[in-house]
Amino acid sequence: MRGLLVVVSGPSGVGKGTICEVLCRRNDRISLSISATTRSPRAGEVDQVHYYFTTPERFREMIARGELLEWAEVYGDYYGTPRAPVARMLESGRDVILEIDVQGALQVKERTPGAVLIFVWPPSPAELERRLRGRAKDSEEQIARRLEWARTELQAVPKYDYVVVNDQVEDAVCKVEAIMVAEKCRPVYFAGLGVVT
Amino acid sequence: MRGLLVVVSGPSGVGKGTICEVLCRRNDRISLSISATTRSPRAGEVDQVHYYFTTPERFREMIARGELLEWAEVYGDYYGTPRAPVARMLESGRDVILEIDVQGALQVKERTPGAVLIFVWPPSPAELERRLRGRAKDSEEQIARRLEWARTELQAVPKYDYVVVNDQVEDAVCKVEAIMVAEKCRPVYFAGLGVVT
Repeated sequence: MRGLLVVVSGPSGVGKGTICEVLCRRNDRISLSISATTRSPRAGEVDQVHYYFTTPERFREMIARGELLEWAEVYGDYYGTPRAPVARMLESGRDVILEIDVQGALQVKERTPGAVLIFVWPPSPAELERRLRGRAKDSEEQIARRLEWARTELQAVPKYDYVVVNDQVEDAVCKVEAIMVAEKCRPVYFAGLGVVT
Repeated sequence: MRGLLVVVSGPSGVGKGTICEVLCRRNDRISLSISATTRSPRAGEVDQVHYYFTTPERFREMIARGELLEWAEVYGDYYGTPRAPVARMLESGRDVILEIDVQGALQVKERTPGAVLIFVWPPSPAELERRLRGRAKDSEEQIARRLEWARTELQAVPKYDYVVVNDQVEDAVCKVEAIMVAEKCRPVYFAGLGVVT
């Protein structure tokens, strides 16, 4: 059976990275997709593990050839999801998780009809603010900007297939797992099972 | 949060009754809907527990007043699902399971947009035949007719939301539970959670 393509998005600080990590750790048939980027590696980042690090020339070539499932330019750097490794994993029956932003998610949905879009949201806006402060990564101004941006992203929710409220990580991971079990019960999958007379 | 209306159908002998029974037994927020019928009670059947036993006159009145979510006439007897008790349970936040045939399921889908349709199917047609024989309820002719009818019912699968293959009951129940968790993560439910700014 072909694997499932699952797109996970949501505001900064909501904990989507942790959800995806736990999900992949306890399900060995699920892989996290690796993004390509033109930005420089940060300390500890390994090519082909954390990102496919590449040049702007090569990235623009990938765009022109339609080799990306989605891409965006952020503050002068390109980020995108190479199509070929994702397609290979899906064909081999592995499920693939894409942890990408809302714009990327909507691009994937448009180009890949079978993709399942999940939006991760905090139990409340106040809790999101608390988590952003807790990371101690951002200035007050950045936190305000991130909260504002979260409200904008929220407008895209009706275009998503599912919303998972991340109150407790364990509970949120179970919900994503349930969504994946359910999606594999879709009639379109059944047709491929060979159980039909 | 409003409960979920789940319709479970599938061929005779596939084990949908067992799945619904186990599901309700281990989830105290899930109720099985009780059908109304004009046929006579069989030994051991209790009014308002197994069926609402009623008269043809009263049944036709319910049809005329739109008091049924779905109904059918089978060998001269009426069977149907009264709308009011289902609506009351859903509003109180309970999930309701309707174990009904394909024709009834499609009627519910048409009249109740939020209903989730699940089709239960055996791992193979040969296994369905084996299960029908194992029940020792039907003549050879009836078994042949049931198998033929199962093939007809299968045509309705594309109109269903999900297909659950009943290989092991435990596994099938887990799939139905996963479907119910997933359906409660739909954006339309999220809007009712009150977590949106």
